[in-house]
Amino acid sequence: MSFKLTILGYNSAVPKRDVAPTAQLLEMGSRLFLIDCGEGTQVQLRKSKVRFSKINHVFISHLHGDHVFGLIGLISTFQLLGRETPLHIFGPKGIQDFIMNQLRHTESHCLFELYFTELSHKTSEIIYEDDKVEVLNIPLDHRIYANGYLFRERPKLRKLNIEAIRKFSEIEICDYENLRRGKDFQLENGQVIPNSELTFEPPKTLSYAFCSDTRYKPDIVPIIKKVDLLYHESTFLSNLQEMADRTAHSTAREAAMIARDAEVGQLILGHFSNRYEDLSVFLDEAKPVFENTILPEQLGVYEIQPKEETV
Amino acid sequence: MSFKLTILGYNSAVPKRDVAPTAQLLEMGSRLFLIDCGEGTQVQLRKSKVRFSKINHVFISHLHGDHVFGLIGLISTFQLLGRETPLHIFGPKGIQDFIMNQLRHTESHCLFELYFTELSHKTSEIIYEDDKVEVLNIPLDHRIYANGYLFRERPKLRKLNIEAIRKFSEIEICDYENLRRGKDFQLENGQVIPNSELTFEPPKTLSYAFCSDTRYKPDIVPIIKKVDLLYHESTFLSNLQEMADRTAHSTAREAAMIARDAEVGQLILGHFSNRYEDLSVFLDEAKPVFENTILPEQLGVYEIQPKEETV
Repeated sequence: MSFKLTILGYNSAVPKRDVAPTAQLLEMGSRLFLIDCGEGTQVQLRKSKVRFSKINHVFISHLHGDHVFGLIGLISTFQLLGRETPLHIFGPKGIQDFIMNQLRHTESHCLFELYFTELSHKTSEIIYEDDKVEVLNIPLDHRIYANGYLFRERPKLRKLNIEAIRKFSEIEICDYENLRRGKDFQLENGQVIPNSELTFEPPKTLSYAFCSDTRYKPDIVPIIKKVDLLYHESTFLSNLQEMADRTAHSTAREAAMIARDAEVGQLILGHFSNRYEDLSVFLDEAKPVFENTILPEQLGVYEIQPKEETV
Repeated sequence: MSFKLTILGYNSAVPKRDVAPTAQLLEMGSRLFLIDCGEGTQVQLRKSKVRFSKINHVFISHLHGDHVFGLIGLISTFQLLGRETPLHIFGPKGIQDFIMNQLRHTESHCLFELYFTELSHKTSEIIYEDDKVEVLNIPLDHRIYANGYLFRERPKLRKLNIEAIRKFSEIEICDYENLRRGKDFQLENGQVIPNSELTFEPPKTLSYAFCSDTRYKPDIVPIIKKVDLLYHESTFLSNLQEMADRTAHSTAREAAMIARDAEVGQLILGHFSNRYEDLSVFLDEAKPVFENTILPEQLGVYEIQPKEETV
């Protein structure tokens, strides 16, 4: 299954000329998930050249404008383009009224259904699942109710060891599904062949966690443990720790501490305050804490790859 | 008084990569008026390099997204930048709830006052005036309640004919104001000197009219008669007249007919359907009806200049 992230924008609250506010597109197989939707996201989607009409699920972290003001425009464009496929929107309690009130005033009549899942719980739960993918919310700590999101592949089936299987003529193709699910095989003579002799370990399941906006919140570490890729906001540097605390944001050092403690594969920083012109200072602060840290690139595409296990 | 228009965007409903939706900035002396505010307008304002914090008045034509979805983002940015100056918003009935509901959900607390003037009348009236400028709504005919706006200088004072005045030693500086206002002067001997002998005609008052979105509506002609510059939507060409009628938009030919009948100085077309790649076809259709027609340029600046009177 393809599993890749496109960063559509990563700016913090006050828009810049050349960097869009927060929005990301996550491709998991045939699924296109939109994560946050700041103003202008639909133009970023056009620039990314993805078939964004295929987005069926939107996950909004919180109702601050730089994360949600582009959603009504995207919905309107879907409507103008004649979309009929339902759109599922996950976000904080209130997001339904936030959107529906705008649709009412603009007298927009969508041909497609809008389904809202409003979140208000304070623990991490599975909020979406299908046969291959599950999504959990990650409770964050911001000035307003906020969630990050964890996207992960569901456990995969074991791989058949065809060479081993062929030794047993009793095993037929219709038995393969059970073997892939880990069941042992009983021969007609009563002998049980352990599954481990007939199959290999399944491929590793991959995962991506998005955490923005939040102050340093170490209790998310167990939720995002060993994710292959983590995006964590780092609005400030440590020399503005007091401002980070007051505005409920993280520093680059704190983001790196989360990445280190969660033993993630790679960390992407983002949501930088506009006071910083040269973003390399964020790497300078984060890398000593967590080496595999990178800066985001607008419209950059990041494959979610297995975390390299240290021996 | 400086009087110039900056076109921030002129696209129709579905956004393009490189053309922003409708928004214009009108400078009249020290006043900065924002006309419509499609998604992304604040980024266009940054690109235009005007001091957009000086915008104190916003005029929204109608509540379709491509004319208003950028307003909440602009207000939020004003709030983040610590604005304290009141902001006056003129627009259709409902615009206050449209904006305030979003501010409520985003838990935004503006330090500045937001004053809304909700329009619902169907005639043209003065909706804003100060010592030098007045603004009138122009009732349009769209799928949703819509107004264009007429911006004009108020009548100016007459110019003193100093040479003529000097012939009468009785006329003192304290009399100049009355002369500029058009009053005759009575000498001590009772003789009346007509004002026309002591002053020249005042400078022409300039005016700009914005008309979008609307179907062909000839009854706006008396309202915009002889404006120096007219922006009129022309979403379609005449070969799609039926579609123009059905969606309540104008063709280039109809826009030019309005310009011709209103004897305006210059016509700028805009709000083109995305189906047209080469916009010169709009000029081809409009110019035979009204020669002084031009296409808009994004971030283009247009001085409002006196209409050249034909003899």
